[in-house]
Amino acid sequence: MFPDRLLRVVQLLSRLPGVGEKTAQRYALALLVGDENVPRDLGRALSELRDHVGPCSICGHVADRSSPDEAPRCSICRDSRRDPSILCVVARVQDLLSIERSGAMRGRYHVLGKLLSPLDGVGRDDIGVDRLIARVSSSDGAIREVLVATPPSVDGEATALLLSRELGALGVHVSRIASGVPHGGDLEFADQVTIGRAIEHRRRFG
Amino acid sequence: MFPDRLLRVVQLLSRLPGVGEKTAQRYALALLVGDENVPRDLGRALSELRDHVGPCSICGHVADRSSPDEAPRCSICRDSRRDPSILCVVARVQDLLSIERSGAMRGRYHVLGKLLSPLDGVGRDDIGVDRLIARVSSSDGAIREVLVATPPSVDGEATALLLSRELGALGVHVSRIASGVPHGGDLEFADQVTIGRAIEHRRRFG
Repeated sequence: MFPDRLLRVVQLLSRLPGVGEKTAQRYALALLVGDENVPRDLGRALSELRDHVGPCSICGHVADRSSPDEAPRCSICRDSRRDPSILCVVARVQDLLSIERSGAMRGRYHVLGKLLSPLDGVGRDDIGVDRLIARVSSSDGAIREVLVATPPSVDGEATALLLSRELGALGVHVSRIASGVPHGGDLEFADQVTIGRAIEHRRRFG
Repeated sequence: MFPDRLLRVVQLLSRLPGVGEKTAQRYALALLVGDENVPRDLGRALSELRDHVGPCSICGHVADRSSPDEAPRCSICRDSRRDPSILCVVARVQDLLSIERSGAMRGRYHVLGKLLSPLDGVGRDDIGVDRLIARVSSSDGAIREVLVATPPSVDGEATALLLSRELGALGVHVSRIASGVPHGGDLEFADQVTIGRAIEHRRRFG
């Protein structure tokens, strides 16, 4: 029904997260009909993307790879106004971006890339714990607190537990983001675990 | 926060239909992390897409542009097993694909590309009515029925009305797809117009 070249684009677009065949078809057809520059420019930008953008050599956030003789460093690691005493550990770059949008984090980050997941065969060594330990140790006490901001899921909690043990042994304070009923959320529709946590982790007023 | 090259990819991805900035970011980050071949292959495929795929010169469906000296003809127009007596007029290629999936259409198609929309300044000449009239006229009676399968919306109905008038004058039968409560749909949740139509266009049993 479709020319081969179009099928190939549909196939590749459906490799994007959450994109099924129908959505990929919609995207491909839109690229065929609209402004002719969009597919060409997007094509060029994508072909070169991985040559110019890569993980920050310090924290794993996305960084410019423009200078080939230097290890890439992201804008946050380069920003001297960041508080060097607090390090926020996240699972993915997306989570880092969410936290940045909140404006609540003044320190720097560490992106694990993955969460511990025994069922999927992701173990301690796959999430780069040693790299994180090396970073904290080599800071010579500059990093005083590690805030583990992995999600409050089974894998996220397992990862947090592992990190709290291994990093705690270095003498650094390890903290965990709060979990509870979200802002604007309704207790009526919150699940049991969330309610349980909100009560268990209750705080005193004032 | 993002390297320029990545921002550019996010910007271009958000030109896709229904893709906002957050979704575009998610796509871009996935392309940065996953298989390195995906962004490169997708990039190449997109750069060349419009050179190799274009509208069918007969019906407007997507077609292979591979041979530069021939006008592109789609797989449906080339398929001699198609019933030449019935022509189905649709607004978009997506609608054609939906109808093809149903298997209920044995004839050929005509893709308008747009619907009549006075509010958006889309008039009679913008939807290629003359091209459709020429196609029907030049068939020398081979096309006996034109089924107007534009959507049952204000613009779709306006387009159908215009086509029924202009094509009716050529002596061809003009029909319209049925509109009513969809298969598996619930009368309780159907809107008033749909219910009204389902009753107005009721059919006798047998």
